[in-house]
Amino acid sequence: MSSILPPSEQMLAAVEKQLQVVIGQLDQPLYQGLYKMLAYHMGWLNDQNLPDGRGKRVRPLVVLLACSAAGGAWQSALPAAAAVELLHNFSLIHDDIEDNSDLRRGRPTVWARWGVPQALNAGDAQFTLAHLCLLELKEIPLERVLRAARLLQETCLALTEGQYLDISFESRLEVTLEEYWTMITGKTAALLAACSGLGAVVAGAQDDVYRSFYTFGQKVGLAFQAQDDLLGIWGDETVTGKSASSDLLAGKKSLPILYGLIHSQPFAARWKHGAIMQSDLPYIVKLLENCGAKDYTQNAADELTAQAVSALSQTGYVNEANQTLLNLAYGLLNRKF
Amino acid sequence: MSSILPPSEQMLAAVEKQLQVVIGQLDQPLYQGLYKMLAYHMGWLNDQNLPDGRGKRVRPLVVLLACSAAGGAWQSALPAAAAVELLHNFSLIHDDIEDNSDLRRGRPTVWARWGVPQALNAGDAQFTLAHLCLLELKEIPLERVLRAARLLQETCLALTEGQYLDISFESRLEVTLEEYWTMITGKTAALLAACSGLGAVVAGAQDDVYRSFYTFGQKVGLAFQAQDDLLGIWGDETVTGKSASSDLLAGKKSLPILYGLIHSQPFAARWKHGAIMQSDLPYIVKLLENCGAKDYTQNAADELTAQAVSALSQTGYVNEANQTLLNLAYGLLNRKF
Repeated sequence: MSSILPPSEQMLAAVEKQLQVVIGQLDQPLYQGLYKMLAYHMGWLNDQNLPDGRGKRVRPLVVLLACSAAGGAWQSALPAAAAVELLHNFSLIHDDIEDNSDLRRGRPTVWARWGVPQALNAGDAQFTLAHLCLLELKEIPLERVLRAARLLQETCLALTEGQYLDISFESRLEVTLEEYWTMITGKTAALLAACSGLGAVVAGAQDDVYRSFYTFGQKVGLAFQAQDDLLGIWGDETVTGKSASSDLLAGKKSLPILYGLIHSQPFAARWKHGAIMQSDLPYIVKLLENCGAKDYTQNAADELTAQAVSALSQTGYVNEANQTLLNLAYGLLNRKF
Repeated sequence: MSSILPPSEQMLAAVEKQLQVVIGQLDQPLYQGLYKMLAYHMGWLNDQNLPDGRGKRVRPLVVLLACSAAGGAWQSALPAAAAVELLHNFSLIHDDIEDNSDLRRGRPTVWARWGVPQALNAGDAQFTLAHLCLLELKEIPLERVLRAARLLQETCLALTEGQYLDISFESRLEVTLEEYWTMITGKTAALLAACSGLGAVVAGAQDDVYRSFYTFGQKVGLAFQAQDDLLGIWGDETVTGKSASSDLLAGKKSLPILYGLIHSQPFAARWKHGAIMQSDLPYIVKLLENCGAKDYTQNAADELTAQAVSALSQTGYVNEANQTLLNLAYGLLNRKF
């Protein structure tokens, strides 16, 4: 198989409908302003001829496919699928405030349009809607609903722990590679792990099968971040849409940069000297390559991808949904079979 | 009975222990900074010789007393009691950012000490800990745990709806009394309603009994807010700790002020003219009294208190916990039998 299968349009449509019902609860005269902030953030309202701000809804697809792969009816997992997308978008609203980012998907962020107080509160509303949505799980035993609710909350805790580390790294001089991996395990990988994990929980998977599904999502998340960090320096601008070496110019402590700080004395000296300029790039990038930062990051992404594939095979399920799940992960990682 | 009974020290100690266990999850080397922010906010860490910042823990007491009053074992409601206190404190962390308040209980707020990004994220962590804590409910049927989880989330949604209205009122010229009541029903009363409601849910109360407990907390919350608004203009500074007429000087759209804007032409004209100064106060306060704003607010507080008492009697339970609950409410409202 050489092409990536298109994700199920039927699943995507069902997720979008569920998302609109949940956020639509706020579509009342008194709460129009609150509703509009969330509908705008979700990419539904576009009243200023702004670009479409809708995300790809990858995470809910992972929930539904994992549920189906583990022998469940994907429709029964819809509340969990919508919940993870709501949660993901809640975290973006708050992250944009914390990072002082005024643009997302080419449009002004919620705080940039409505101010920090309303945006912060709208994020809190979306946080709650995510959990309320999950509690709509029906047609499955109550134990599973509770297990799913606990998993979603534990994921939120992991997200905030990761975000705490990420913010604190900015002001720290030294960050170990171990700390970095811990940070992205919370900030990036926990939610994808929860997606495949939730699908398995709804399907009623046994503990070891659940663990394999969870690990699959976690490894995909880690591989995705390692690759994103690679592209942040060596990416092809025409493909990634962001300028090559942008993480160096932004002073972002990504994986290859942390590796370079530890393994290249000249790179560390230059980094501490002050902001890196466009004209420094060829020399700086060479320093990173020479000390093995690029290889280390590439190998990490490869190894994590292999671990994800292995985890999925360890679920013991071989079926169409499982195959689609693998294709989706490969698509996310810009890889082909 | 003419004195207010002291709240159960045993209950308070058990709540504090549970709170410390929940937040103590973060007390790990890697997350020390995050742990310290929450422990400081809860009033446990006082490393700068600052005043004690611990709240009165009224809300968890209401949960435990309501559970006991409805025939349950209060110990079984401890996770719900700790959850509402965590939730209350989460909302304070975010409110302080939204209101740009740098002091709470005489100490710097979390954002004032650690910056907005970390404070916002710490609030999110506390939000999640509240819900994780509630899911620790044991020894009761799963249906009740799920009902309690749903109630807590619905309460969060009501809080954010109320907060949305409150922030939007600041920039609006006209706000109706009906809108004001809707706002405080969400912002102030929903959490107290959830407290007495959660106690009843854990105890396994039938729907009508649950509804009476819920209404009791809701009416206490509304009465409390009406009285707080009254004290914000006519309070005795030596008793309330805040300067009399402070709401007028702060330009806060409280209940008597909104009443005055609607019923007193001269008051409305003066209000629109610009900030009210200390020297204006005697005249302005007289205008409010003459148009009936003080009486309206006082009558509302009295009527709501009577409705709270009536709701509690409609639960059908007459016992010590119920009596203590009533005393607690009276204490909160600075009233005596």
